[in-house]
Amino acid sequence: MNIRIFLFQDFATLDVFGPVDILGRIDGAELHYISLEGGVITNRNRVRIETEKAADSPSGGILLVPGGMGTRILVQNPIFLSRLKMLAQSADICLAVCTGSALLAAAGLLDHMRATSNKKSWAWVTSVSHEVDWIPKARWVTDGKFYTSSGVSAGMDMALGFIADRYGREKALSIAGAIEYLWNEEQEKDPFAVETAKES
Amino acid sequence: MNIRIFLFQDFATLDVFGPVDILGRIDGAELHYISLEGGVITNRNRVRIETEKAADSPSGGILLVPGGMGTRILVQNPIFLSRLKMLAQSADICLAVCTGSALLAAAGLLDHMRATSNKKSWAWVTSVSHEVDWIPKARWVTDGKFYTSSGVSAGMDMALGFIADRYGREKALSIAGAIEYLWNEEQEKDPFAVETAKES
Repeated sequence: MNIRIFLFQDFATLDVFGPVDILGRIDGAELHYISLEGGVITNRNRVRIETEKAADSPSGGILLVPGGMGTRILVQNPIFLSRLKMLAQSADICLAVCTGSALLAAAGLLDHMRATSNKKSWAWVTSVSHEVDWIPKARWVTDGKFYTSSGVSAGMDMALGFIADRYGREKALSIAGAIEYLWNEEQEKDPFAVETAKES
Repeated sequence: MNIRIFLFQDFATLDVFGPVDILGRIDGAELHYISLEGGVITNRNRVRIETEKAADSPSGGILLVPGGMGTRILVQNPIFLSRLKMLAQSADICLAVCTGSALLAAAGLLDHMRATSNKKSWAWVTSVSHEVDWIPKARWVTDGKFYTSSGVSAGMDMALGFIADRYGREKALSIAGAIEYLWNEEQEKDPFAVETAKES
């Protein structure tokens, strides 16, 4: 399974590496860290990670799109969004964590679809596109090939949810056990869905 | 707060980046990724991360020691263990995730102290040192300046536990909320403490 992780400056650390440690346990997983231009990508946790150029990455498989403060400027970057659209269209499955769904929304990939995002950034994310059916109370949401999760740590629950959908619940529980993770298995159970999110 | 993360080839991804995304939210956090020789460190998730040379890193603050398959060979590497001992002794607090506690044990840092580790690797970890009071049922264990956690994802619960001890429970809950993480707050509650672990 080809797994591409689309990085950008100031991505959120756990958005990436929670799902990576889970998806990397799929049999035959091949992880590719990619970015628009390739080279070293950094963030506020001083992670400095080497990436391949996105245009050169293999198609198919899973595309993982993290969130983070870097998304704020990228929703207005047509070159980035055009590449994201191509990457998502060439993937079998697209998983977006946290404000990563704002990037998908800005690229028009979520028009007339159900999606969720970080509840702490809800007003901003939902303002990015009014064409999306934003779900204010969900740990993660699935619509077609798009999976979108709530903030940061919810990406791990979504990654396990994808594995359950694709490989069965026993496989998801096996991976959760291997990393001694208490999987929040219910998509609709969202303790961070505060009233302000519902009103936004 | 100076936070040094001691990396080595084939560290476990989430052991590092779960705690990093949490500890990095401490006011004034300064993260340093270090390794014995410095340079690029890689692992089975194809993470390629640049590190500083451990001997040149600033003392004091927090030392974070991850686990991972790389620990298996390092418990017999006297140069690595000697450096680990110096790093731990020069730190105010030492947090070891998963099989990271086997490294501390091999360095003699946990002699006559209480500690825990990954329950899936329990027999191996506990065989590394018989001088440690290994606790088979604990999400994480605190003894003096040493915090040790169960496998992989338990490192996040321990990091929040350290923040609660040091900065108060409200601060820990605030950070957990920021990353929409359901903190497993009870140190003694360990759903992965299987019978085989107790017998080892």
